[in-house]
Amino acid sequence: MLKDTDLSQKISKEEYKSNEKELEYKLARLQRRARELKIPVIIVFEGWDAAGKGTLINDLILPLDPRGFSVYSTFTPNQEEALRPFLWRFWRHIPRRDRMTIYDRSWYQMVLNERVLGHVKKKELPEIFDDICSFERQLADDGVVIIKFFLHISRKEQKKRFKKLRENSCTEWRVTKEDLKQNKRYDKILAAADEMLAESDSAFAPWTIIAAHDRRFAARKIFNTVISALEEAINKTEKNPPVRSKKTPGTNEITEENANSSILDKVDLTRSYSLEEYRSKLDKKQKRLRELEHEIFVRRIPVIIVYQGWDAAGKGGNIKRLTEKLDPRGYRVIPVSAPNDAEKAYHYLWRFWTKIPKAGHIAIFDRSWYGRVLVERVEGFCSEEEWKRAYREINEMEKHLTNFGVILLKFWLQIDKDEQLARFKDRESTEYKRWKITDEDWRNREKWDSYKTAVEEMLQRTGTSYAPWTVVESNCKWYARIKVMDKVIKAIEESV
Amino acid sequence: MLKDTDLSQKISKEEYKSNEKELEYKLARLQRRARELKIPVIIVFEGWDAAGKGTLINDLILPLDPRGFSVYSTFTPNQEEALRPFLWRFWRHIPRRDRMTIYDRSWYQMVLNERVLGHVKKKELPEIFDDICSFERQLADDGVVIIKFFLHISRKEQKKRFKKLRENSCTEWRVTKEDLKQNKRYDKILAAADEMLAESDSAFAPWTIIAAHDRRFAARKIFNTVISALEEAINKTEKNPPVRSKKTPGTNEITEENANSSILDKVDLTRSYSLEEYRSKLDKKQKRLRELEHEIFVRRIPVIIVYQGWDAAGKGGNIKRLTEKLDPRGYRVIPVSAPNDAEKAYHYLWRFWTKIPKAGHIAIFDRSWYGRVLVERVEGFCSEEEWKRAYREINEMEKHLTNFGVILLKFWLQIDKDEQLARFKDRESTEYKRWKITDEDWRNREKWDSYKTAVEEMLQRTGTSYAPWTVVESNCKWYARIKVMDKVIKAIEESV
Repeated sequence: MLKDTDLSQKISKEEYKSNEKELEYKLARLQRRARELKIPVIIVFEGWDAAGKGTLINDLILPLDPRGFSVYSTFTPNQEEALRPFLWRFWRHIPRRDRMTIYDRSWYQMVLNERVLGHVKKKELPEIFDDICSFERQLADDGVVIIKFFLHISRKEQKKRFKKLRENSCTEWRVTKEDLKQNKRYDKILAAADEMLAESDSAFAPWTIIAAHDRRFAARKIFNTVISALEEAINKTEKNPPVRSKKTPGTNEITEENANSSILDKVDLTRSYSLEEYRSKLDKKQKRLRELEHEIFVRRIPVIIVYQGWDAAGKGGNIKRLTEKLDPRGYRVIPVSAPNDAEKAYHYLWRFWTKIPKAGHIAIFDRSWYGRVLVERVEGFCSEEEWKRAYREINEMEKHLTNFGVILLKFWLQIDKDEQLARFKDRESTEYKRWKITDEDWRNREKWDSYKTAVEEMLQRTGTSYAPWTVVESNCKWYARIKVMDKVIKAIEESV
Repeated sequence: MLKDTDLSQKISKEEYKSNEKELEYKLARLQRRARELKIPVIIVFEGWDAAGKGTLINDLILPLDPRGFSVYSTFTPNQEEALRPFLWRFWRHIPRRDRMTIYDRSWYQMVLNERVLGHVKKKELPEIFDDICSFERQLADDGVVIIKFFLHISRKEQKKRFKKLRENSCTEWRVTKEDLKQNKRYDKILAAADEMLAESDSAFAPWTIIAAHDRRFAARKIFNTVISALEEAINKTEKNPPVRSKKTPGTNEITEENANSSILDKVDLTRSYSLEEYRSKLDKKQKRLRELEHEIFVRRIPVIIVYQGWDAAGKGGNIKRLTEKLDPRGYRVIPVSAPNDAEKAYHYLWRFWTKIPKAGHIAIFDRSWYGRVLVERVEGFCSEEEWKRAYREINEMEKHLTNFGVILLKFWLQIDKDEQLARFKDRESTEYKRWKITDEDWRNREKWDSYKTAVEEMLQRTGTSYAPWTVVESNCKWYARIKVMDKVIKAIEESV
């Protein structure tokens, strides 16, 4: 594939200069328009060392408004990054809806250098290509324009450029031993790059190969590609503005199918412990959890625990007992409420990605990304297309996490409608609990059946082999707390 | 000082239990109230290894609403942190106005472990204590409640605890060789801690020494201290709500003193280059800048360049020429406009602290923290007290940066009123420039004299020996661009 590229392509200085300014103004105008329309843009630069990435990126950004973009340079992962799934650092830097991120090297390093250096094994490749494809599709579905360049030069040209860099005392340091080895390994990398281009080319994130022997030719092709991608996206958006939150009436009706296949109705809510039983178990389990917290720290195992459940199902108290004897340096409770404006300016999974714990630490999500298919679905805060898409997106994310080695536990705290009512009333009549109950809780209660439909569908569609749900019978809080602790202890014990 | 602490203080289990719940509810209530009133809280835990920091922090946070706080654990700085001034990572984690940050160890490590281990020299201490004092005062002035605990145990007790931890296979790993050495160096650390307590105790950020032999006694004292600090702050805020943005009429009038001592009027705006002169210099200087960019990267020198100036003074074009030949991986342009809501929820310097470049990189601020004493002052976006305080705060921050080795360059781009008018009109009549001119520009122009007063005062009060201003004659853009490049080249050359 790369071998067939015509590397002799050139543009003369006169031809280049003849419309340079015009193209720069055009690009600047399109950038401003994309900002207005809130079209986020990702531009990936991959390619050979010494192919001119730095220079060409600078050519591209100079005409742009600096308020609208940022450049992310991909180096060897630092400690913060190495202790997390490989997509983490790229998720953290995805563009806000009105911005552009230019990745100088990217997630594709996993299937290029990391692969050729043997850090990534051949058998891991299909998984990685899947992860990359999901990542790009999720962003594209959310409206991100993705443009990917591979800057191509021949082995001979690379050697010549390295030589030139080494002859100048100011640039000598830029050519490392690794780079020189890269030239020796040229053919191996070429094969990996060919495979990458074939495996990861898609309609929503296409590759453009840039013949980079002639800088003007390369710059011009990059400009033209970016310009036409932006024009296309702008035209499309002007014609069909994206629908981000449209109430779709009727989609939450209880169908007969749902009514018949209820998981929740089959839950045995009479399960309970006496106070005595509870107390005798609690202390032992809390101590065991503290031991295991140390264990996973030493072994660098990341743990994510997701709590979902009805209002007043006892999530807060459950989490408190789970963490009561833990070392606060090893766990973090992450309460999730409605996204703020800054968070809304990104893909809805972004705010959760930024909170993925380091390997060796425990993150406890008090509500989570499942809001998308629960409250956001029921209240119409996202479109039907969006929440339907979310099941797949969530499964993809959880797969990526568990592939990395995350122990992922998901709990649905189940109570019945009567129990909820009793607890609401108790909250209202107890002074130190009163802050916990709001009008919204009462409003949500009225939509119990719609929520139930959404919960059932969530349990069905996201209960995967790698990240199964546990429904926790929570009419008796004591029973629920011990059950969660048991599950957590068991899951960790199995993996250490 | 520490030696005089009565370490035999105890509380019996019965006494502790008798009002445990009551204090927990009280603390939870105060936390909620502080959130409502937007009172940020910082709690620092310092003290001996094995003094029980982990357990005591957990006791403190369990009754709290997890939406309201986060725990920051201070480890040896990672690479991202080591390449920046030591306060950077703590600034990044200061609490939002409605939140609490609990620092498990803190900036005081600089004068404790780092000092005892010899990483910090004795002669550096006064500077570090100054930096710490400024940091805490800036936050306290902004309304942050600062509570600092030192958990004290005797040498013997520490030894005993280490022994116990090592006897349990689950906790064995927690006692490192370093820890055992710490016990040997106990007296040295004690002396350092005594000095720290004396040097950094202040009304706005007082230390509380906690006798930590008895866990219940320690927990109780910590609870009581936090409760009374919160109560005091809440009472104060209820009586005198903070004024964050009050137009103070009259403060921007031109006084005779200002009219007489004008720096700006003495600037020779006739300075200029012909296009020929400009072109002959430009290319050479841009190439030199690219060389120096490599130079500072190799030597790990951080560079910060601040641009301020009148609307249409040519900041954008000046920056573009400065960066035209640079490698985009080594510099970043940071355009600064009005703070967004997320940024407004912190101390005004916070958003700049988060953008401090890594050593070896160049950050170019297109407008900066000086907005506080320019637009925010003139437009009344902050109170008079706030902008008056800002001169000192800015000098303190810049001192901290330059102490770390940052090359800090500040440019004021000066044009006269006629030149601005000509440029505004040009922008209006040129299609591809039109987006640059807004109604706000015309409104600002009407306040030229008020802005001039503010600029003059800024130049006077923040033109320090370590971070002097350069006024750049910018009626001729070509002259201005070359002058800035010259200054940058000279400053870097002097320091490499």
